[in-house]
Amino acid sequence: MSWVAEARGLYAIVDPSLSGRFHPIELAEAILSGGCAVLQLRDKRKNDRATLELARELAARARRRGVPFVLNDRADIARLAGADGLHLGQDDLPLEDARLVFDGPIGRSTHDTAQVERAVREGHALLGFGPVFPTRSKENPDPVQGVEGLAAAVARAGVPIVAIGGITLENAPAVVAAGARLCAVIGALASAEDPEAAARELHALVTCAAASS
Amino acid sequence: MSWVAEARGLYAIVDPSLSGRFHPIELAEAILSGGCAVLQLRDKRKNDRATLELARELAARARRRGVPFVLNDRADIARLAGADGLHLGQDDLPLEDARLVFDGPIGRSTHDTAQVERAVREGHALLGFGPVFPTRSKENPDPVQGVEGLAAAVARAGVPIVAIGGITLENAPAVVAAGARLCAVIGALASAEDPEAAARELHALVTCAAASS
Repeated sequence: MSWVAEARGLYAIVDPSLSGRFHPIELAEAILSGGCAVLQLRDKRKNDRATLELARELAARARRRGVPFVLNDRADIARLAGADGLHLGQDDLPLEDARLVFDGPIGRSTHDTAQVERAVREGHALLGFGPVFPTRSKENPDPVQGVEGLAAAVARAGVPIVAIGGITLENAPAVVAAGARLCAVIGALASAEDPEAAARELHALVTCAAASS
Repeated sequence: MSWVAEARGLYAIVDPSLSGRFHPIELAEAILSGGCAVLQLRDKRKNDRATLELARELAARARRRGVPFVLNDRADIARLAGADGLHLGQDDLPLEDARLVFDGPIGRSTHDTAQVERAVREGHALLGFGPVFPTRSKENPDPVQGVEGLAAAVARAGVPIVAIGGITLENAPAVVAAGARLCAVIGALASAEDPEAAARELHALVTCAAASS
């Protein structure tokens, strides 16, 4: 059984262009110290050497903590870095093609119920869904789906949903109540005064809320 | 023996964002009808589904003509499209990593003799070198190397060189005389009145010059 079935809590995303005043490795290490269910690298820098190097470093640090490491977008780099998962956007490779390159659970970002249904038909192991709330971590974000949209996506998906977009300590309980097992956070960690403490609080809150819902 | 050792003539590059008034498939078909030694897809659109689809189509059309098909940048998509070669830029994957994903000749773009020497040490099968002349097909191009720079690169390389950057019917003989077996052309094909005729002329000229040099 893959790590997907059991993952509950904070789905921490590190993005080198959104890591605030921290080096991405430093930020990832703080998050891993605080605690998270999954660590994902989202790297849009268009420098594959740098992405592979960073992915290998984060994969090694996540492995030491027993946390699955997921890479965004790139099947080849996920394979080369020994990632535990691959997360694809709407314009990335079709699942059946990505599977020929990367052997492991493959997620897909979805932004409305039609995309959820298509990703489920394709056979994805888990889905990102959002933005649940307004976000500043993405340029040209898709329309906000709200907690209602998230609940509808969960009802249709039948596979674990990673909620994303504007999630904070304040609204995370409502996100979990809507059925998300995992809450993805980028900005609220990178911009935190103390990312380790922020990760600890968010992971504990989501894990606890998920256990009781 | 791979196709690299025997390739002489026009190294035609189709770029969907630089295909002028033509659909990239239409442009590629015209070039293949005219004649070329290699057909490369350079796709910077950041839509992997679209790139894979186009790469598969161009690979099939090139194969029908017995022309090797090369994809830019992406080891995973080159593998999935059944490409005959992969061409990497300076910021793309290291050769030893790319080889773990793609099985076939792998080239590297180089822009000065230090980059040539590094690529040769890495073990690349062929090298792009340029810009030989000023070019409008690349944003922020590297410094122009001239025919003298090209000749120096050829002397150092020991593997086939694909000359690139501002190559036309007029200057191609000098490029071949400097030791390039293959002349890469993007803009002079996409902007030609008749790309099939332009490919025929360029391929014949470079092949003939290469045979007599």
